[in-house]
Amino acid sequence: MANVEGIDALLAPESVAVIGASEVKNKIGNVIVRNLKEYGYKGKIYPINKKADEIKEIEGLKVYASILDVPGPVDLAVISIPAQFVAESLEECGKKGVKAIDVISSGFGEVGNKEEEEELVRICKKYNMRLLGPNTFGVYYGGKTMNATFGPKDVIPGKVAFISQSGALGIALMGWTILQQIGMSAIISTGNKAEIDDADLLEWLASDPSTNAILMYVEGIKDGQKFMETARKVVLKKPIVVIKSGRSKRGAQAAASHTGSLAGADNVFDAAMKQVGVLRAADFGEAFDWVKALSQSPPLKAKESVIVTNGGGVGVLATDACEFNNIPLIVPPDDMKKEFMKYMPSFGSPKNPVDLTGGANEKQYYDALKVAFKDDRIGTVIVLYCQTAVTDPVAIAKQIAQAYDEAGRNKPMVTSFVGGKECDDAMKWLTRNGIPSYPTPEQAVKALSAVYRWNDYKEKLSTRVAARARQHRAMS
Amino acid sequence: MANVEGIDALLAPESVAVIGASEVKNKIGNVIVRNLKEYGYKGKIYPINKKADEIKEIEGLKVYASILDVPGPVDLAVISIPAQFVAESLEECGKKGVKAIDVISSGFGEVGNKEEEEELVRICKKYNMRLLGPNTFGVYYGGKTMNATFGPKDVIPGKVAFISQSGALGIALMGWTILQQIGMSAIISTGNKAEIDDADLLEWLASDPSTNAILMYVEGIKDGQKFMETARKVVLKKPIVVIKSGRSKRGAQAAASHTGSLAGADNVFDAAMKQVGVLRAADFGEAFDWVKALSQSPPLKAKESVIVTNGGGVGVLATDACEFNNIPLIVPPDDMKKEFMKYMPSFGSPKNPVDLTGGANEKQYYDALKVAFKDDRIGTVIVLYCQTAVTDPVAIAKQIAQAYDEAGRNKPMVTSFVGGKECDDAMKWLTRNGIPSYPTPEQAVKALSAVYRWNDYKEKLSTRVAARARQHRAMS
Repeated sequence: MANVEGIDALLAPESVAVIGASEVKNKIGNVIVRNLKEYGYKGKIYPINKKADEIKEIEGLKVYASILDVPGPVDLAVISIPAQFVAESLEECGKKGVKAIDVISSGFGEVGNKEEEEELVRICKKYNMRLLGPNTFGVYYGGKTMNATFGPKDVIPGKVAFISQSGALGIALMGWTILQQIGMSAIISTGNKAEIDDADLLEWLASDPSTNAILMYVEGIKDGQKFMETARKVVLKKPIVVIKSGRSKRGAQAAASHTGSLAGADNVFDAAMKQVGVLRAADFGEAFDWVKALSQSPPLKAKESVIVTNGGGVGVLATDACEFNNIPLIVPPDDMKKEFMKYMPSFGSPKNPVDLTGGANEKQYYDALKVAFKDDRIGTVIVLYCQTAVTDPVAIAKQIAQAYDEAGRNKPMVTSFVGGKECDDAMKWLTRNGIPSYPTPEQAVKALSAVYRWNDYKEKLSTRVAARARQHRAMS
Repeated sequence: MANVEGIDALLAPESVAVIGASEVKNKIGNVIVRNLKEYGYKGKIYPINKKADEIKEIEGLKVYASILDVPGPVDLAVISIPAQFVAESLEECGKKGVKAIDVISSGFGEVGNKEEEEELVRICKKYNMRLLGPNTFGVYYGGKTMNATFGPKDVIPGKVAFISQSGALGIALMGWTILQQIGMSAIISTGNKAEIDDADLLEWLASDPSTNAILMYVEGIKDGQKFMETARKVVLKKPIVVIKSGRSKRGAQAAASHTGSLAGADNVFDAAMKQVGVLRAADFGEAFDWVKALSQSPPLKAKESVIVTNGGGVGVLATDACEFNNIPLIVPPDDMKKEFMKYMPSFGSPKNPVDLTGGANEKQYYDALKVAFKDDRIGTVIVLYCQTAVTDPVAIAKQIAQAYDEAGRNKPMVTSFVGGKECDDAMKWLTRNGIPSYPTPEQAVKALSAVYRWNDYKEKLSTRVAARARQHRAMS
């Protein structure tokens, strides 16, 4: 059973001690203190360094020689000191009454030092402390504006939680989310997973109000049954997307020498994920594409989709992608066609794709989308724009958002703007404003199809539950 | 049979007349003159406007009332006037001795006006002029620094030729190549393909020294047999990547109403492309990824690949991708391992992936890559970088290029830098400098696999030809 006790203290602490805090710029123990402070953490930050009598201050904060010297209570201790001193430090944390520990330090299970890793777990259990890691890059939690990582500082707050088993890749992907303008609710580096595991985190995130979708990078899962049981419940509330590497034979060997994970048979993992409704992405590009849509989409109330475009070519590409990704396209009845025709020239097309033609400006996009949002027969909307010399992508992006907001963002929508820098700017603006946007129509459609697949799974499950309930009633 | 007569005049003319040139900014007839001039076309540019007595100059160039008034010879006439005047204009071009025509004007076959389209072809045949279009957005040819399109101006010169059937999408994708830093040798909008078709262009591009790879966006092909015969020959010289939309049932209907193309059965098209060695991409994101690698790769001399990385996680992802995309990974023999070990800390891995570990700087990348380039047992190289706080992606990119240049760019290489803005900068630098770079390891591997697939096809074919030659000899 997943255990969420103490995870509050890990992700949403009121106070954080950084054990191994350093005054030397670019040292991990310095970057963590700086990220905490500069990102805007509102709780107490206590730098701990045994040379406190010499150093006095780190990043303007009073330094303590030991956690036992800290005046107030400490929820979370982030530990970045050489491996051989960690156990001793944990004993002090335990005595202090710290509730959660994040061990940044490496040199444990991942290099074969399993005994010392088990020792850490034993100490934490003794004092009823939760342990993340060891061998992590820290935790970020948007709800507390807390960046207790040694990754990039400027994480964009948002709705996606990311759990990463790989440290280096996790940090790099933190940077990637910033570049891609993806807003994050939480970033958690699980490292060696000596105590806290994916299931514990999933269970906590399922009830986290700031998280709408969960993305996991895993190389291996230790307790498969626990993970499955937890994921099965969590998926009913929030979508989970998983990237699992070590899928190939050779990749599994590489993973084994990287984090010591036993990857197991990939097809078994695949079947297991399908069974519990976890969406599996082939790579992290795809995974982030999906969570961008999953984290922003309102519930799916009707299935049929409409494509609104200013270009026939992109319309055809999206149509292909819808068919290949099982998104049904509405065949507009006459009354719907009549509505769309109001906002296009005579050579436009009110069929689906609704082709506003190349001259379509922001006003025409706005008007056509108002029709699409208002009509209950339309379940989802795919908006495409193909750059032209006579229209302004950013202005169009803003009117798309305007129409969507006025409709109360009432159905899932994805967008794709194909073109140069102005299109890139427009897409960044949309993504920052919670409207998923993608450089190719296919990416947009595939991301939307993840929303459908999550929905299908939930529907199938609720049908099964209802059937079981009927059966129970009939028998009693 | 493909016909290249006059295509020189279309793509590499010494003089261009713009019929329908305009002094009004943002009119097509103005943008084309401006793009020609500002992009740096060295030949003669003759703006033609029947109100030459009033207008005198367009963009600083003397205006002529008729092409018949132009003093020197005219290789190419680009026509942008209302459809009903095009035929008359073509007669004048014919009398003038123009060699190639690009009809920008729409209002022909694509709106059902097939008769007038046939009339244009008839006139061109009479005067032995080649006809591109009608309904095009123009032509760009890097070899002559000629941008005779009404698309974006700042096309990056390079090695990729792009043939687009869709006008709007073609223009948008021109912008996209700039954003993605993909260098182009030619961009040709085929429009309605009334006379010049894909096969003619392919045949010409096969002998074009500035083109290394060809990308085509097609919705339908008119003369399948001609296309196949030509492609089969061209592929032996240069790789062709095709994106064909209208692949799905619904997409084919949309394509039919867009350009009037009959898409035909998709699986037939697919089989045909495989038979002649044309690589088919699922979408244009993938297609441009592939041509980036195909246009820059030297010949493949050995098959086995090595992955050089600073992060285990990205290494595992790339390993998976290699296996799924049939790229064999070398198992480094002891002597090779020993070489790699010189450039990594003791906890690095000289196995494949060669893991230089997170601290690896530009020097270590340089040294390790020198080993990879020098060793003939290694056929291709995949370089990965996962952003860290202590290393500089741009500096690493530059040392990768340095090592590659020193080795004479002697084997295909792809790179992927995972991280934030600095990684994006590094990848743009690499791509601009002719080293294909991709935001995810999977994209890099898939692009490299396109190089393998093209090579496999050529090998298979030459084996077949050799076998046939042996058979001939044996029988004679």
